[in-house]
Amino acid sequence: MKRRAAVVGVGMTKFTKHYDKDVKELTEEAVWNALQDAHMTPKDIQLAYVGNAVPGVVSQQAGIVGQIGLMGVGVVGVPITTISNACSSSSCAVREAAFAIESGHYDVALAMGVEKTVMRKEEATPATIAMASKFLSLGADGQLENTYGITFPGFFAMAALKHMARYGTTREQMAKVAVKNHHNATMNPYAQYPTEITIDQVLNADIVCYPLGLYDCCPLTDGAAAVILASEDVAKKYTDTPIYIAGTGQASGVYRNSDDDMTRFLPTIMAAKEAYKEAKIEPKDISVAEVHDCFSISELIHYEDLGFCKKGEGGRFMDSGITQLEGKLPVNPGGGLKARGHPVGATGAAQVVEITWQLRGEAGKRQVKNPKIGLTHTLGGLTHADNAVSVVTILTRK
Amino acid sequence: MKRRAAVVGVGMTKFTKHYDKDVKELTEEAVWNALQDAHMTPKDIQLAYVGNAVPGVVSQQAGIVGQIGLMGVGVVGVPITTISNACSSSSCAVREAAFAIESGHYDVALAMGVEKTVMRKEEATPATIAMASKFLSLGADGQLENTYGITFPGFFAMAALKHMARYGTTREQMAKVAVKNHHNATMNPYAQYPTEITIDQVLNADIVCYPLGLYDCCPLTDGAAAVILASEDVAKKYTDTPIYIAGTGQASGVYRNSDDDMTRFLPTIMAAKEAYKEAKIEPKDISVAEVHDCFSISELIHYEDLGFCKKGEGGRFMDSGITQLEGKLPVNPGGGLKARGHPVGATGAAQVVEITWQLRGEAGKRQVKNPKIGLTHTLGGLTHADNAVSVVTILTRK
Repeated sequence: MKRRAAVVGVGMTKFTKHYDKDVKELTEEAVWNALQDAHMTPKDIQLAYVGNAVPGVVSQQAGIVGQIGLMGVGVVGVPITTISNACSSSSCAVREAAFAIESGHYDVALAMGVEKTVMRKEEATPATIAMASKFLSLGADGQLENTYGITFPGFFAMAALKHMARYGTTREQMAKVAVKNHHNATMNPYAQYPTEITIDQVLNADIVCYPLGLYDCCPLTDGAAAVILASEDVAKKYTDTPIYIAGTGQASGVYRNSDDDMTRFLPTIMAAKEAYKEAKIEPKDISVAEVHDCFSISELIHYEDLGFCKKGEGGRFMDSGITQLEGKLPVNPGGGLKARGHPVGATGAAQVVEITWQLRGEAGKRQVKNPKIGLTHTLGGLTHADNAVSVVTILTRK
Repeated sequence: MKRRAAVVGVGMTKFTKHYDKDVKELTEEAVWNALQDAHMTPKDIQLAYVGNAVPGVVSQQAGIVGQIGLMGVGVVGVPITTISNACSSSSCAVREAAFAIESGHYDVALAMGVEKTVMRKEEATPATIAMASKFLSLGADGQLENTYGITFPGFFAMAALKHMARYGTTREQMAKVAVKNHHNATMNPYAQYPTEITIDQVLNADIVCYPLGLYDCCPLTDGAAAVILASEDVAKKYTDTPIYIAGTGQASGVYRNSDDDMTRFLPTIMAAKEAYKEAKIEPKDISVAEVHDCFSISELIHYEDLGFCKKGEGGRFMDSGITQLEGKLPVNPGGGLKARGHPVGATGAAQVVEITWQLRGEAGKRQVKNPKIGLTHTLGGLTHADNAVSVVTILTRK
C-alpha cells in the first residue's frame, strides 16, 4: 500500500475585494496562517504548488507566480510550480502535492491558490467589469468560444433551462442554493458576503442571463488559501489531528454525444468515480461537502453528478433540506463560491481548508455535527466539448 | 523501491517561426508524432501535463491551454493540467508525470510543452519585438524587475561580465558555445537555425547587451515537444528500448548572499545535486547532456553548476573540446536553445526528446557514440533573489 498524505496545516485570507493587496501580500498572509497552524517554519516546506487561474491580467504576475508570491514568506530554494487549470487550479495543486508525497520524493508539501480578480479601487469603473469578463473568459477557448460570444453565465443558463424543461427544476429551488450558502457564510469570518438573503430577493434580482439572476451567480473576489500536507509518519509529528487525503479524482471534458449532456458535467462524474474508488467509499458515506456552486444551478446538477441523489432529482434534493447545515449531508458550510467568494485559483484550496476545519471540529458556529468523511469538488473552464476540468478530493479523520 | 517511470514515445514539431500555426496545431503535431513513436492511440494516455510559459499573450489561450490543445488529437476526458514555470515549464511537466506514475496512480502519462512566441507574419513588425520582450519579461517579477528595467539579456550580460572579470573567461570562449550548437543543429532536421557560423561572426555581430551579441542569444521560436511516459512494467509492452527516468531535481532561487553568487545559478546546483543523488550517479558518469544555453555564457556557467568542471573553469572546459559532438561529454547535440530554437514552454520536453533519441541510437548524423546516461537541464525565470526555477533530469538505458 502506498503511503498516505495528510493535511497538517491550513490557512487563508479573508475573501473579499482586496483593492490594496497584491498577489504577494495575499500569498504571504495565507501561507503564514497555514504555517502557524502547522507549527512550522518556512524552512519545513520541501516543495510547493501554487494554483493561479488567470496569470498576468490583473496581477501583473504571470510566468513565475509561485516563486514571486512565496519569496516574501521565506519559502525559497525548494521546487515551486505554478498550475493554471481554471477554477480547479488549486484543487490540482493539492492533488499534485499528494502525488509528490505518495511517490516518496517529499515529506512536506505546500499546496495553495491565489487570485487577483479585482483592480485597485480607483480603477474599479464600468470598464473594469468588461475587463473581468474578458479575463474570466480565458477559462474557455480563446479563439473559438470567446470569438463567438459564449460566456460562463450564458453556458450555465442554458444548462439551467434544459434542467428546468427536462426535470421540472424551478427557479425557487435554485434560489434555495443561494439562500443556504449566504446563511452559512454569516457564520464564516472569512466570507465575502456574510449576509442573509431571501428567496424573493433572489427571484426578483436583476437578470444576468435568464434564468440566472444576480444572486444565482458567484461574485468577483480576491484571496488566497493554503494547505500544508505531510506524509503519514511525518504528519503525526506536527499534529494530533491529521486529516488524510483518502482519494482524489480529476477529469477533463469529452465530446458531448447526446442531448442529455447539457444537464450533467461528465468531468465531475468521472472525477468523483475515481476519488470514491480510491477512498473505497460511496457517496452515502460523505458527512460534509464543499461543492462548486459557481451558479446556483451548478450545485443542483452537482448533487446528481456526485451521486448524492439520482439524475434529475437535484431540485427536489435541495427541497428536502438534506444539504442544509443541520441536514444529513451539509453542502458548502463555508458559504460556497456564492457567498464565501470565488478567487478563482484559490477556491479549491479554500474548500480543503474548510473541510479540514470541519473534520477537526474547529468550524465554530457553522460546525457540522461530528463529520468523519468530507468531500471537495471544483469544476473549471469550458471547451467546445464540455467543462474542462473537475477535481474531487476525499478527506478523512482516519 | 518505488516503481520507475520510463520514456516510451517522443515527438516534436520543427522549431521555427510558425507564423500560420496556433497552439492547437503545434500541440496536435507533437503529440501525434509521440503517439506514433510509442505505437499508442490517444485513448492509451491516462493523464497529461502541458507546459506553457507565457499563456495568453500571443496565443489567445490562457486558462486551459492543455485541454484546448489536446482536444484536436483526441486526448480528452483524462486529467489535463497546465504548468507555467518559465523556461522550465515542460521540464516540470515531465517531472510531474513521473511523480504521477511513481505514486502508483497512473501507468501511462503524457508530458509536453508548447509555445507561441511569434505572431502572424503580417503582424511581425518592429512593435512585435517590443511585444516579445514584454511577454518574455513575465518570467520575472512583473511589479519590481519589469518596472525597474532589468531584462534577461541584461541579467545574463552582468553574469558574463562578472565571470570574465573574476575567472578570465573570454568572449571567444562564449562564442565557441554558439558555434558548436549551430554546428550540431545542421544535423537536426527539427532545428530553427541549422547553419554553420564562425567565431568571427559571433564576435562581430550587433551587440544586444555587452558582452552579449546577437549570436550569443537564443532566438524567438514557436513549437511543441511531447514525451510519453509509462511505468516500468507497462513500458515493456510498448517498446524494446525504454529510457528510464533515473532521477530528477528541481529548485528555486534563494537570496543572494555573496558577491560570487552572480557567477553561479544556485537553483541549478541544487537541482543537479538532487537528481544525481536519486540516480545514484556522479557528473562524470554522464554520456550526453542538453543544457540551458539561453545565452552563450549560460552554458559555460552551467558546465560548472552541473559539476562537469570546477568553478570558474567553464571557459577553459569549452576550449578543451570535451563538449563537442565528438568529445567525451557532448553538450547540446540537438543544437540547444541557441540553434534548435527556444519555444519557451516546449524546451524542457524537447531536451528529453533529444536525449531519448541519443540513448536509443536514433539521432542520425548527430548521434553520440554509444551513450548510456543522459542529462537534461533547464533554467527559468528571474526573481530578485536569483533565477526562479531549475530542473535537472537523468535518463538511462537501464
